[in-house]
Amino acid sequence: MQSNLRIDLERLMGRIMRLAEIGAIGGGGVCRLALSDEDKQARDLVTGWMRDLGLEVSIDAIGNIIGIRPGTEDSPPVMTGSHIDSVATGGKYDGALGVLAGLEAIAVLNDADVTTRRPIAVAAFTNEEGARFAPDMMGSAVHQGSLGLDDALSVTGIDGASVGDELVRIGYDGDKTVGNSTVHCFIEYHVEQGPVLEEGSITVGAVTGVQGISWTEYKIEGVSNHAGTTPMRLRHDAGYAAGAIAVEARRIALEIGGDQVTTVGVTELTPGLVNVIAKEALVTVDLRNTDESELQKAEKRINDFIREISTKEGVTVTSRTLARFEPVVFDPEMIDLVDETATALGYSVSRMPSGAGHDAQMFAPNCPTTMIFVPSKDGISHNVNEHTSPQEIRAGADILLQVLLAKAQ
Amino acid sequence: MQSNLRIDLERLMGRIMRLAEIGAIGGGGVCRLALSDEDKQARDLVTGWMRDLGLEVSIDAIGNIIGIRPGTEDSPPVMTGSHIDSVATGGKYDGALGVLAGLEAIAVLNDADVTTRRPIAVAAFTNEEGARFAPDMMGSAVHQGSLGLDDALSVTGIDGASVGDELVRIGYDGDKTVGNSTVHCFIEYHVEQGPVLEEGSITVGAVTGVQGISWTEYKIEGVSNHAGTTPMRLRHDAGYAAGAIAVEARRIALEIGGDQVTTVGVTELTPGLVNVIAKEALVTVDLRNTDESELQKAEKRINDFIREISTKEGVTVTSRTLARFEPVVFDPEMIDLVDETATALGYSVSRMPSGAGHDAQMFAPNCPTTMIFVPSKDGISHNVNEHTSPQEIRAGADILLQVLLAKAQ
Repeated sequence: MQSNLRIDLERLMGRIMRLAEIGAIGGGGVCRLALSDEDKQARDLVTGWMRDLGLEVSIDAIGNIIGIRPGTEDSPPVMTGSHIDSVATGGKYDGALGVLAGLEAIAVLNDADVTTRRPIAVAAFTNEEGARFAPDMMGSAVHQGSLGLDDALSVTGIDGASVGDELVRIGYDGDKTVGNSTVHCFIEYHVEQGPVLEEGSITVGAVTGVQGISWTEYKIEGVSNHAGTTPMRLRHDAGYAAGAIAVEARRIALEIGGDQVTTVGVTELTPGLVNVIAKEALVTVDLRNTDESELQKAEKRINDFIREISTKEGVTVTSRTLARFEPVVFDPEMIDLVDETATALGYSVSRMPSGAGHDAQMFAPNCPTTMIFVPSKDGISHNVNEHTSPQEIRAGADILLQVLLAKAQ
Repeated sequence: MQSNLRIDLERLMGRIMRLAEIGAIGGGGVCRLALSDEDKQARDLVTGWMRDLGLEVSIDAIGNIIGIRPGTEDSPPVMTGSHIDSVATGGKYDGALGVLAGLEAIAVLNDADVTTRRPIAVAAFTNEEGARFAPDMMGSAVHQGSLGLDDALSVTGIDGASVGDELVRIGYDGDKTVGNSTVHCFIEYHVEQGPVLEEGSITVGAVTGVQGISWTEYKIEGVSNHAGTTPMRLRHDAGYAAGAIAVEARRIALEIGGDQVTTVGVTELTPGLVNVIAKEALVTVDLRNTDESELQKAEKRINDFIREISTKEGVTVTSRTLARFEPVVFDPEMIDLVDETATALGYSVSRMPSGAGHDAQMFAPNCPTTMIFVPSKDGISHNVNEHTSPQEIRAGADILLQVLLAKAQ
């Protein structure tokens, strides 16, 4: 089943570097916020490459770009893809790698005159990052019907512009309908955006699913008072409560163990002066687990703790859910295929969950889905210093090629 | 020894309310930053009142206003006083009460034709708050020689102006020399700025000294990473370390006990996003104790903890001392005098340290010194909601009158 075909690393890296010139920022990163002028230029470049490769290119109503290489059958395609938008200070591989490695696979099949039974599709989904318009993974969500088109089009961004208007402005308000798109299977190739592969000296991750996410913002209201004249027993210190939540969140992660991670990334004290007891604190708690029941256990523990400390410290706490996604489980056969292909190609491989959200998760409920990860140096992501070596990029791209071929034959 | 003289509450409250019109802000507070136009207007009003009361008014080289009621002897005066500058959102009693109650005592002595052996001086010291120009207690520090005149004059404020230039601008660059001023004794009347008296239903505090203060800023440098993709064991989370410091600071206060207070009033995380492990945290720790050896113990404990957590979490911590004052001990006989006078006048009284800094502490090394405190409602200070009842104001003012009389006779 294993084909002798291999990707052309120089050609793939050439496309990655060429795309990274669009929206380039200092340090080797890119700023290509969704539906910006830079996003339009990147879309024009990618659709041009798709046409050069002979793909049938369509733009759908949410602006997803899909290039199809026909098979001998007119059946739902084997699809790969990712995104070409970025955060404001993004790296050159996040998203772009998955789209361009898909195009590289097409180029290899073209060069070798390979005909497949099923069509192969390469997609660049609109607004995966959510940095300009919320929610993230917008294009793939609309494509797979979990987000309504009109809801998506009416979203207003951080700069006041709407998705619908911006799609028209950059000329990517396509005519292809959405929400009813059937694909045979979906595989996304992406950089890990974490340190797990590098730390284990593993080249490839066969992704088992996406962690469930629970984001809550807590607003703690205490009483502002003088740090010198207020005895400890008379304090209602929002800052102390905030610190205690950060410490408890860590304890919960260690005690639940496994995949459980917890992060307090925001702590803002008001008034925030050295000699004033904080009257207010804003704290966020980010909880993730691949197991929904464990995630609920973590949520219960942090909320029980916050109730307890609010009583003890005499502060009031109000909470707001910022995001809540159940874990996504990928297809066992697709995961096996990635795992076996990596091994057959001589790469070390590890099964692992994704800690970040990806377009692939929108496909998982509807068709067999998985992802291929390659290492991110020092786990750095959403940063101009994001880096993956060419050798690692080759590994994932060759696996993608083989998986596409296997599923399309 | 107890005199039958009593202050005129209506006259005193009238002056307090008149002064509070200058720099008045919403909610009943004042904004009279040191050496601002509002401070000048307040100074003009107070020096006018001093002259009306027959005092010999002098302005010294740092702008302190001192009004002297001569005694039969030309000896160092019995001095009282405080300040009329405020923080940006101050209350109407903080500082002003001590100056105006001093003038009220003078008025009572004038009305009763009382002659004292020693002169009595009422002072309004420059820039006690330190809100515009650091350090605070500037005028009294220069007056008592613990801060050099030239150093004080060259201080640049938060708005870029210098103390020296602003003194000239508002016409309070006086010609009286400073640093060599001898006084017989010093007593300052001030609102508590804390909740201790109110909580104990006590009307008067006989102040035993001022807590020593240790302010340190800690900059914690960790590694910014994705909150989903970074396993707990691979984190170097500056935000977690910051939270742990806040929790440990509380633990230290409770374990040392007594007067020890600890406050983490500043916690700033960078980048401060829900799904990003903080790469940097700025934390301040405010430690206070009336006992220098206990204060040093608290400092050692927090620094030991920070060393320990920086190793455990793999973060680097650098520290910067923002302020360090040893505790100030007031004069036992002066404290006794306040205590006995309060009791003789029928007021409940409690000996207590001051948790805040005051002009009086600059006098303590050089002459017998103490302070009189009256309650602050809910302990609120440096806030437009600062409040002390007229009955409480009367109590402290009558005690001040008696103490001045006793020391000047």
